[in-house]
Amino acid sequence: MNNAEISRRGFLAGAGLGVAGVAGFSVMPSGPSAQAHIPNHVVDFDGIHQAGITTAAQDRMHFVSFDVLDGTTRADLQDLFKTWTAMARRMTEGELATEDGAVGGGDFWVATDTGEAMDLPAANLTITIGFGPSLFDDRFGFASAKPAELNDLPHFSGDAIDEKISKGDICIQACADDPQVAVHAVRVLAKEGTGKVAVRWSQLGFGRTSSTTEAQKTPRNLFGFKDGTNNLRVEYTDLVDKHVWVHEPGDWMNNGSFLITRRIRMLIENWDRQVLKDQEETFGRDKLEGAPLGRSNEYDELPLDEYVGTDGPVIPNDAHARLAHHSENNGARMLRRGYNFVDGSDGFGHLNAGLFFIAFVASPERDFIPVQSKLSKGDKMNEYVRYESSAIFACPGGVEGPDDYWGKKLFEQTA
Amino acid sequence: MNNAEISRRGFLAGAGLGVAGVAGFSVMPSGPSAQAHIPNHVVDFDGIHQAGITTAAQDRMHFVSFDVLDGTTRADLQDLFKTWTAMARRMTEGELATEDGAVGGGDFWVATDTGEAMDLPAANLTITIGFGPSLFDDRFGFASAKPAELNDLPHFSGDAIDEKISKGDICIQACADDPQVAVHAVRVLAKEGTGKVAVRWSQLGFGRTSSTTEAQKTPRNLFGFKDGTNNLRVEYTDLVDKHVWVHEPGDWMNNGSFLITRRIRMLIENWDRQVLKDQEETFGRDKLEGAPLGRSNEYDELPLDEYVGTDGPVIPNDAHARLAHHSENNGARMLRRGYNFVDGSDGFGHLNAGLFFIAFVASPERDFIPVQSKLSKGDKMNEYVRYESSAIFACPGGVEGPDDYWGKKLFEQTA
Repeated sequence: MNNAEISRRGFLAGAGLGVAGVAGFSVMPSGPSAQAHIPNHVVDFDGIHQAGITTAAQDRMHFVSFDVLDGTTRADLQDLFKTWTAMARRMTEGELATEDGAVGGGDFWVATDTGEAMDLPAANLTITIGFGPSLFDDRFGFASAKPAELNDLPHFSGDAIDEKISKGDICIQACADDPQVAVHAVRVLAKEGTGKVAVRWSQLGFGRTSSTTEAQKTPRNLFGFKDGTNNLRVEYTDLVDKHVWVHEPGDWMNNGSFLITRRIRMLIENWDRQVLKDQEETFGRDKLEGAPLGRSNEYDELPLDEYVGTDGPVIPNDAHARLAHHSENNGARMLRRGYNFVDGSDGFGHLNAGLFFIAFVASPERDFIPVQSKLSKGDKMNEYVRYESSAIFACPGGVEGPDDYWGKKLFEQTA
Repeated sequence: MNNAEISRRGFLAGAGLGVAGVAGFSVMPSGPSAQAHIPNHVVDFDGIHQAGITTAAQDRMHFVSFDVLDGTTRADLQDLFKTWTAMARRMTEGELATEDGAVGGGDFWVATDTGEAMDLPAANLTITIGFGPSLFDDRFGFASAKPAELNDLPHFSGDAIDEKISKGDICIQACADDPQVAVHAVRVLAKEGTGKVAVRWSQLGFGRTSSTTEAQKTPRNLFGFKDGTNNLRVEYTDLVDKHVWVHEPGDWMNNGSFLITRRIRMLIENWDRQVLKDQEETFGRDKLEGAPLGRSNEYDELPLDEYVGTDGPVIPNDAHARLAHHSENNGARMLRRGYNFVDGSDGFGHLNAGLFFIAFVASPERDFIPVQSKLSKGDKMNEYVRYESSAIFACPGGVEGPDDYWGKKLFEQTA
């Protein structure tokens, strides 16, 4: 399936486009920024781990958080998860969510698929599920299986959290190279959940546009700086194994990961008034290349122990790159997978823009909370951002074959 | 320039990607749905008409409406329009907005370009300006040149207009195949306008993803139906000339067009509960092919005068396709150029999704108001949509060469 270009009507897409799309990426980048993906392909749904975590970042994201409605039982939820899993598998394969699809059930039938992805290909769609701390209260009998580290994130200095766009019982992260494919995936699952779950909040995001940009370039955030140079990469197998995947053989979370989201509003108008030197000292990197200050290449090591005469350190003590660096955080690492957003304007003359931060970690208490705690107190960047949301979800291990479904092991463990 | 792939750092992009991108679209569709464009190219900024109107629709849109701030003079505005024009021209050519760009002015310099489009190509960027009715009040001396048809749209039956996302003194429509390129264009112009104009509202939208879908397919809206089958097409030269372009030789609006926007929230959860037959009768077309009811091909004429025995017309009297059809509206036509949107959720368990409607017309009073008036009273689709915003702008003719600038003729006409 990985080399087929299959549209949602089941035929091979026009060879011109298909072949050209592949050819454009036939030379995979070999440098450390290798985040490229083959456009418009099928990402395997089944596997030991869920897709959408170490999968090379797709171009677009639709993220949704659901609350389970009053009256929904454990059995209802189990049925929903079974149906959702089958739908998600089909959609990631470039099919409509059900066999009947959008038009296959006759005139007086309510379609199970909403149809806006008809004619669209798989577009690298991944659909990743996570469970919030609140799902483990006394409603569904999951309390005994609540992961020890699945707790609402603490209040960090300067947080301005809006509860309405935070938390949630269940999250779905849909990523694809076509926003309509990602939107469709979330929308169909939300429709299927009608009466059992309701959308608590959702977020659209955009990243690199792989059809028009060079794959080996690190994408830029809305502050204009390269973002992701020092990110954990899938090629670093040992680090990913330690810092992304949960290892608890026998537990439902085995081979899963903790997903943390923070909606980081960027006060871009304030940022844009700063001189270049201030901006670069805020990041600890230069704006053009993304090289650490005092160095010339993006992937040079940060000279954290170097000083400029008596002017202090080359990388300022309050620079983001220093404070976030693993060597300053007892080796803490995270796999970041965030997306830029612009959600209209804020009603006060500014664009409502920023970064929807997503990180996957094996241990929030080791890999995320101490780092964010340090950043919240000392990061010079705090002058230009506002943390508006906060959420944590436990993503189970992958679905392994047609008899498995999202949360199966959790149900079994708490049976 | 049209065949070059030029990144914002001034060198030719990697041949693999560039050539593949072009090759994928080397066979241009010849059918009536020809809306394809060559991805990742430069659209000419200068011309008799502004780009971004009959330009084949790009994949993404960022639309912004500005209000001019108190204290801004006519001369301030003229200076701003000159600077904006130069910046817009550069950006559409794949350059940063200014020669110094994001990093060229030294350490203690506030950059004129915000930098997030560094390394990104032109991506078919177009930047189109329009002037709202309020710009022609007594502030800037434009009152005598106000177009007779540039008036706030009337209240249509069922309108639920939010003033905060309606109207505005000036609009900018930025469209590109990369959302970051469109966002960057608006953001840089907003930054340049600091102290003179402020963002009143803005909207991000998405359409077809040209790198992954077949160009000859009509895109679908979030109701799952093909949208644009009967749209005015650039190939219909006479119709475009009559229904899109203003012909007033000697006036600043000559070769311009009126731009109308309406944020159409789709109540997708209600829609998704309807049976297929109801949905198809609402549109007057079938969902799979987009063919008129009673016909089998998308581009078949609507059988508006056919009846099914005694069951009434084949195309119901309240079907959207009938009510919007030019033959039922004294020949009224418009060039639609809207984009889908999903802006998070509405706080009541639903996705905040819909269509950001954009239409260009030569005469709002002939080509838009009567049609919308009819639709607002009789369209079966009204059960499933809510009109949340309303705006009209007068887009001047194109900029013709480096000595021209946005609004130059308006300033001269009112000197």
